[in-house]
Amino acid sequence: MQETRLDTARIRAARRVIDPIFLDTPLYRCEAMEPGLGCAVSVKLETANPVRSFKGRGTELVAGLLAGQGSPAAVCASAGNLGQALAWSGRGRGLDVTVVASRFATTAKLDRIRALGARLELVDGDHEMARDRAAAIARHEGIRLVEDSLDIETCEGAATIGLELVGTRPTFDTVLIALGGGALATGVGHVVKACAPDVEVICVQPLGAPAMTHSWHRRHVVTTDSTNTIADGVAGRRPIAAVLDDLLLVADDAVLVREESIIAGMRMLFTHAGLVVEPSAALGIAALLEDRDRFAGRHVATIVCGGNVDVDAYRRWVGATPLHG
Amino acid sequence: MQETRLDTARIRAARRVIDPIFLDTPLYRCEAMEPGLGCAVSVKLETANPVRSFKGRGTELVAGLLAGQGSPAAVCASAGNLGQALAWSGRGRGLDVTVVASRFATTAKLDRIRALGARLELVDGDHEMARDRAAAIARHEGIRLVEDSLDIETCEGAATIGLELVGTRPTFDTVLIALGGGALATGVGHVVKACAPDVEVICVQPLGAPAMTHSWHRRHVVTTDSTNTIADGVAGRRPIAAVLDDLLLVADDAVLVREESIIAGMRMLFTHAGLVVEPSAALGIAALLEDRDRFAGRHVATIVCGGNVDVDAYRRWVGATPLHG
Repeated sequence: MQETRLDTARIRAARRVIDPIFLDTPLYRCEAMEPGLGCAVSVKLETANPVRSFKGRGTELVAGLLAGQGSPAAVCASAGNLGQALAWSGRGRGLDVTVVASRFATTAKLDRIRALGARLELVDGDHEMARDRAAAIARHEGIRLVEDSLDIETCEGAATIGLELVGTRPTFDTVLIALGGGALATGVGHVVKACAPDVEVICVQPLGAPAMTHSWHRRHVVTTDSTNTIADGVAGRRPIAAVLDDLLLVADDAVLVREESIIAGMRMLFTHAGLVVEPSAALGIAALLEDRDRFAGRHVATIVCGGNVDVDAYRRWVGATPLHG
Repeated sequence: MQETRLDTARIRAARRVIDPIFLDTPLYRCEAMEPGLGCAVSVKLETANPVRSFKGRGTELVAGLLAGQGSPAAVCASAGNLGQALAWSGRGRGLDVTVVASRFATTAKLDRIRALGARLELVDGDHEMARDRAAAIARHEGIRLVEDSLDIETCEGAATIGLELVGTRPTFDTVLIALGGGALATGVGHVVKACAPDVEVICVQPLGAPAMTHSWHRRHVVTTDSTNTIADGVAGRRPIAAVLDDLLLVADDAVLVREESIIAGMRMLFTHAGLVVEPSAALGIAALLEDRDRFAGRHVATIVCGGNVDVDAYRRWVGATPLHG
């Protein structure tokens, strides 16, 4: 493998900095889902922690670094999960955290960011506008801008999931990873390719937010004008070139899935696995549903990366008939 | 503490026999639930494993023992979780497992028992009738009867949860434990009282299935003629004397909760923690809801002991208005 921006030794070292509450998450077969999917499925569950997503792994590294440097403050743009995690990690270290989010972001995520003591600023636009605004705040206030997927700590934190995936026996044939900004995919992908190169790394993105997937296939950054997906956690329009370069080295494929498949995946995880997941966390199951032949008979691991949902929206998605999706 | 039937050294040793997939489960604060409860709440999550309950800890010990003895078969009565776990543990060791259950048991549990390859026999009565029938099968076929809560392995398995609870800092003020046959309560209670005696151990049972709680308060076995609760996992009528003796040594209190509190607890765990739990697993939250003054300002841990629900019933319980219970 050509070298990505990540380093496996640094990722192993990161485990010692991250609060153990985010590490060694459950990884287990969900046999009740398998008849409906035609393959063996294991889930890596990243929702059973204080912020209900994997993002705490990365923010622990960021906040630990800032506290070590005596930095008093940080700002990030977030669809909600990074902001919540940075607020949690910052609170424990006395950092002033500002989160910039779209006013269309998931209400439950925004509520938790406020409850965790962060300053929340809403922009009247999408996540890319929040990124611009966060950068402006960082420049103006002279504080650290935490950029998801670009900042190596966010990738290294996510990459610790990879260590937990490759450390098990039997290994998997395929790992399905939600693709948004790319921290999760490049982080986990790096470790899988470094430690278990035969395991296939497939990224999954919604058809309604395909910028990074298009970029991967064309091998250069492709932006889009808008996004249209319920998977708020991965709804970016402007991929970061350095992240794409890493993704080109570690991903075997990047696929796009329909909204109805994401909903069917959420419903299946609820009905047959008892898991409440946000749309981004159902992308892997959506990919299995859309291409059963490709995965038939294989053992697939999928990272259930977050569970922060607005309850009313979740009920609409999952409560709809048919009951046994 | 006077001596229970359990031994802390044996419980520590049990960790080496149990498949790690059941061990070191998530334990974390659920701050989003706390404003509604008036105390700090941590959950010990026992649903993120292949059988979606804590019972695998005990059946791993039982099945390991039987396999070591060259025993080919075992039978148990179960409301569904023990049977599912014994089927899982037995399958991995080539044991023939028979499960006897009430025909009124949760359908999802019965389906999983069958899917895991166990022989399932249904009785036209409640769990106590299933216990009688399982004993008859064991006598007739000359195979091992696995008796939940009486068999020390079922208590030792559950007790490993206790080791994980007392091994953390800060410690809790109170641990709330679902009370049914008593394996979970005596197992966890033993470890808590042995290793962290200042932590309060409170057992919680439904008003509709109060036999063990009445027995604890009267200090002798009290049976009831029937049960009437949605908490199928704890709906026994005939407490076992040896288990009661242990419970008298380790429990600080045993309380009864109403059905509507159990439903409110399930709804709260869904809405504010994103957790799908079965009624028995919401007993601790139900106890908090019923006596806020008692727990005000304390840090309470509750064991979310199982998540096997019939989806339609779960939707009725949790989907009902008010939405934000």
